[in-house]
Amino acid sequence: MLHILFIFALLFSSSVDAADFCVAKLKGAGSPSGYACRPPTKVTADDFVFSGLGVAGNTSNIISAAVTPAFVQQFPGTNGLGISAARLDLAPGGVVPMHTHPAATELLCVTAGKIQAGFISSSANQVYVKTLNTGDVMLFPQGLLHFQINAGGKPAAAIVSFNSPEPGLQITDFALFANDLPTDLVVKTTFLDAATVKKLKGVLGGTG
Amino acid sequence: MLHILFIFALLFSSSVDAADFCVAKLKGAGSPSGYACRPPTKVTADDFVFSGLGVAGNTSNIISAAVTPAFVQQFPGTNGLGISAARLDLAPGGVVPMHTHPAATELLCVTAGKIQAGFISSSANQVYVKTLNTGDVMLFPQGLLHFQINAGGKPAAAIVSFNSPEPGLQITDFALFANDLPTDLVVKTTFLDAATVKKLKGVLGGTG
Amino acid sequence: MLHILFIFALLFSSSVDAADFCVAKLKGAGSPSGYACRPPTKVTADDFVFSGLGVAGNTSNIISAAVTPAFVQQFPGTNGLGISAARLDLAPGGVVPMHTHPAATELLCVTAGKIQAGFISSSANQVYVKTLNTGDVMLFPQGLLHFQINAGGKPAAAIVSFNSPEPGLQITDFALFANDLPTDLVVKTTFLDAATVKKLKGVLGGTG
Amino acid sequence: MLHILFIFALLFSSSVDAADFCVAKLKGAGSPSGYACRPPTKVTADDFVFSGLGVAGNTSNIISAAVTPAFVQQFPGTNGLGISAARLDLAPGGVVPMHTHPAATELLCVTAGKIQAGFISSSANQVYVKTLNTGDVMLFPQGLLHFQINAGGKPAAAIVSFNSPEPGLQITDFALFANDLPTDLVVKTTFLDAATVKKLKGVLGGTG
Amino acid sequence: MLHILFIFALLFSSSVDAADFCVAKLKGAGSPSGYACRPPTKVTADDFVFSGLGVAGNTSNIISAAVTPAFVQQFPGTNGLGISAARLDLAPGGVVPMHTHPAATELLCVTAGKIQAGFISSSANQVYVKTLNTGDVMLFPQGLLHFQINAGGKPAAAIVSFNSPEPGLQITDFALFANDLPTDLVVKTTFLDAATVKKLKGVLGGTG
Amino acid sequence: MLHILFIFALLFSSSVDAADFCVAKLKGAGSPSGYACRPPTKVTADDFVFSGLGVAGNTSNIISAAVTPAFVQQFPGTNGLGISAARLDLAPGGVVPMHTHPAATELLCVTAGKIQAGFISSSANQVYVKTLNTGDVMLFPQGLLHFQINAGGKPAAAIVSFNSPEPGLQITDFALFANDLPTDLVVKTTFLDAATVKKLKGVLGGTG
Repeated sequence: MLHILFIFALLFSSSVDAADFCVAKLKGAGSPSGYACRPPTKVTADDFVFSGLGVAGNTSNIISAAVTPAFVQQFPGTNGLGISAARLDLAPGGVVPMHTHPAATELLCVTAGKIQAGFISSSANQVYVKTLNTGDVMLFPQGLLHFQINAGGKPAAAIVSFNSPEPGLQITDFALFANDLPTDLVVKTTFLDAATVKKLKGVLGGTG
Repeated sequence: MLHILFIFALLFSSSVDAADFCVAKLKGAGSPSGYACRPPTKVTADDFVFSGLGVAGNTSNIISAAVTPAFVQQFPGTNGLGISAARLDLAPGGVVPMHTHPAATELLCVTAGKIQAGFISSSANQVYVKTLNTGDVMLFPQGLLHFQINAGGKPAAAIVSFNSPEPGLQITDFALFANDLPTDLVVKTTFLDAATVKKLKGVLGGTG
Repeated sequence: MLHILFIFALLFSSSVDAADFCVAKLKGAGSPSGYACRPPTKVTADDFVFSGLGVAGNTSNIISAAVTPAFVQQFPGTNGLGISAARLDLAPGGVVPMHTHPAATELLCVTAGKIQAGFISSSANQVYVKTLNTGDVMLFPQGLLHFQINAGGKPAAAIVSFNSPEPGLQITDFALFANDLPTDLVVKTTFLDAATVKKLKGVLGGTG
Repeated sequence: MLHILFIFALLFSSSVDAADFCVAKLKGAGSPSGYACRPPTKVTADDFVFSGLGVAGNTSNIISAAVTPAFVQQFPGTNGLGISAARLDLAPGGVVPMHTHPAATELLCVTAGKIQAGFISSSANQVYVKTLNTGDVMLFPQGLLHFQINAGGKPAAAIVSFNSPEPGLQITDFALFANDLPTDLVVKTTFLDAATVKKLKGVLGGTG
Repeated sequence: MLHILFIFALLFSSSVDAADFCVAKLKGAGSPSGYACRPPTKVTADDFVFSGLGVAGNTSNIISAAVTPAFVQQFPGTNGLGISAARLDLAPGGVVPMHTHPAATELLCVTAGKIQAGFISSSANQVYVKTLNTGDVMLFPQGLLHFQINAGGKPAAAIVSFNSPEPGLQITDFALFANDLPTDLVVKTTFLDAATVKKLKGVLGGTG
Repeated sequence: MLHILFIFALLFSSSVDAADFCVAKLKGAGSPSGYACRPPTKVTADDFVFSGLGVAGNTSNIISAAVTPAFVQQFPGTNGLGISAARLDLAPGGVVPMHTHPAATELLCVTAGKIQAGFISSSANQVYVKTLNTGDVMLFPQGLLHFQINAGGKPAAAIVSFNSPEPGLQITDFALFANDLPTDLVVKTTFLDAATVKKLKGVLGGTG
């Protein structure tokens, strides 16, 4: 009986194909659905674990904030699984500036401190702002402008997750001022004056 | 024979159900997939035709530009079909300011004049700008900041299409300055100074 | 100028339709894509915030564990947004038994203590087990059997997220023993003997 | 212990929401994702079973063939589940004429007799034809013209399945000749002459 | 401060991965989701612009019509973006014969002249026909038979867009008569007589 | 005229790109959307036909049952088409044990004999069981535990189809007992005692 059973087990495991996961081969071309899969025989439990979110990011910067991503490039196991994560650290006074994730909804869970967060709707420019305590969860729908600010006097942190391994991150100030987009184009398309644009280009490392 | 055939035809048409289309009943609650369907018996060819894009929009405004949408609210036939359109008019000097479509990729086809258009990538803040002639087509990937500017001395126009009946439109300036988002939150999250923020709030009708 | 601008703003906000979000009306029939949307005018920032995950669940039960969900039924704001969350508490010795989420991939982030977790692949019955420290993240691909166990001597907790507002939860023991599935059917389909089945039905409240 | 366990079971089953299925309420408006769901409490095992495919359809008609659908309208349990089926009967000489399924790929499994079947690709008008024996399976990719013909001297049958509860069925001859599409429009758009068009309109019950 | 900011900018742009776009490498195997992506460093603004739709197609042919596609093979920037376009030219008397797009809904915008267009539903063989003026938009749901005819005495043109980079195009006459599908199979599956089939095969270059 | 027509035909067939199908190249890395496509020029009708389901599987094993899959690994033509099939054979007394398909809904059509089949819901552990006669169809929603048992005194068979080319198959007993998952982990996560676990590991070839 045992013998027959083994054959049966073998039959099933060899003849059945499943797309349980597709750990990314980051080298090489991607496709619209993500990266090519590493051979299952070379995949181990380690490929499904990411240890980088246990340590606070370095907030010694101009925004007193840090974002530590566990997107597909850092965490190849997320490839094709439709989910990813990041850690957010906000020192007192810290701010994650206005930004969007073009390809994912964000779910933020405060793990330390207090965070004021908000997003703006596209149809009516309606503002949705809340001050969140530790343990609170907030949603930021896909593609909408949003921000997070430390709302207490001590360090705050959050775990955020996204319904895509590649949510994207477009910080409005960086998109406008941290590249070579000509000043006159920025002026024309933002209603800002040239002096303001040039100043921010200076601060954020942009040219043009 | 004819008799049998009729029965056969009847059989097929009555027993076969198809989701060819789902013209929106705009009144009543929507769902994540769109609006409820009007009964097929009340649908006519007119439901699949929209005539509003043949006329130039009114560009007598501060941006010398007009956007005439044919999204699901104006064009209920697009409901569930994964596509919609709009007309863009740019008087000389006209500008469609920096904006995103949170839920769709845009394809723009210039139908008159010259348009300078561009978008900014999320990963590297890379700028992709081109001056387009009549007949040229340009893509603006989902959720990315982009703009259009009249690039000639005469009126320009474009037909744009989206791969969603509800692409959304978030104009950055309106999102930041045309609502009650408190000035200090705008200041903290944009690096702009309070005077600039207040001035733009004044121009765009915002408060706070 | 201001006047014109207001008209422009009005034009845009009234004529542009966007599917930014669809907060669930839980009463009434759902659809394959989720629940009907509450009118946007009745939606506030509170609809996007869930405060129940800040408090530990009650682990005074047979498995010394608790799962506190923030799925669409508890957190209607997730409707249509493709994401949800839950809190997991594991007292010392606590176990979340073998289970699947039929409709979502899970991403677990340990927020306190140590957790041993694992899943089993479908094709080769391969086991992927890891002991996770605070801050570690682990993935559990959609539909695969997995478990979590407290791996330290003190309470452990985790925030888990799912790429669906309705991930589902099928605990194998409850599916097999906590209902009226006849004992002989359980015996035939699990290779367990009738005495074991009847004992577990007794413990878990099943009949038949 | 039992008491605690019951509470635990209760907790899980009441607090966890799952979208396992959504049996259609056929009355009332559908949505782009399908019909509204019947309340789970009113759903029984019968809703997931369809008994109509065990009986041969009536092939006493002009094409000596019958299609018995188990699409969402006949089999409401398929709503939202992404699959449906039909039975195909072909008397000797029977033919299912050229047709498409606009919204689904078809998988046909011959259960009796021999069937010659084929489809035509869209890019190169390439023909893929095979004669299938009982037990053979053939694929017809979404939206492509295909046909089935009895290829033996005795009755043939097949079970076909589709990856949609609403695959749609557009029989080319019925689309062209069984309605009020004006003869001159058919002539212009098909290269057929008016006499042929009028004759087929006569046979298939069309007007115009 | 500048120094710190640069580090911050660097951190974000290098550590954040985004799937903004995936310009096709047309050489090499595709996948079900499209072609492999060209490296982002080799992508320029030109990849998102297609200039071929500004020129009328050559309508000196039997149907006095021309279709100029900007699908993924002509416009690799559309890969993975869920949208594409084409230009349609109809000389007086011009016709785009009955056809389907198996993989996309079409949105047509008349840019010159008048066009009579229509589609046929799958369930009830219902005809939806309209005569469109310049600026009118019409929808053709995915997979349904449709046609376009010049409805004025002068050249007409349209820009059409699709919600797929690979909509496909199956012209019914070409599928039936422009290949080696045996005449008897065409006869059996279309109700046409052999003489008509052979004549059309002759005209359209088919054999068999 | 003929000449012009040929050019026209050529123009269309060469300039139009379609994603009708994507027959899998099984060697080489897959992607989240499936395998790479074989060149269309190397694809023939045979690639869309699978002949292995016409023969009964070998049921001389411990469960007196056999599953013969036609998933993408056996039937590469299903790649990207969203559907696949399998044959199920149940000798008298035969059982397909409790299992799930993590990535697909199953539709079963009984082609011979009688089959008792059932599934268990995730939310309420509700049991849905039916005895099916030849010709009956039953649905098993994605990811839910289900089983099939011969319900007559003679051989039974079924054709099952799935709305994915890679549905996956996770047999609960094999997942728990046919690998090296340590006995104490199985005990902790299933409520079974160690003796039962070790016995089943013995029978099913597991270790640990």
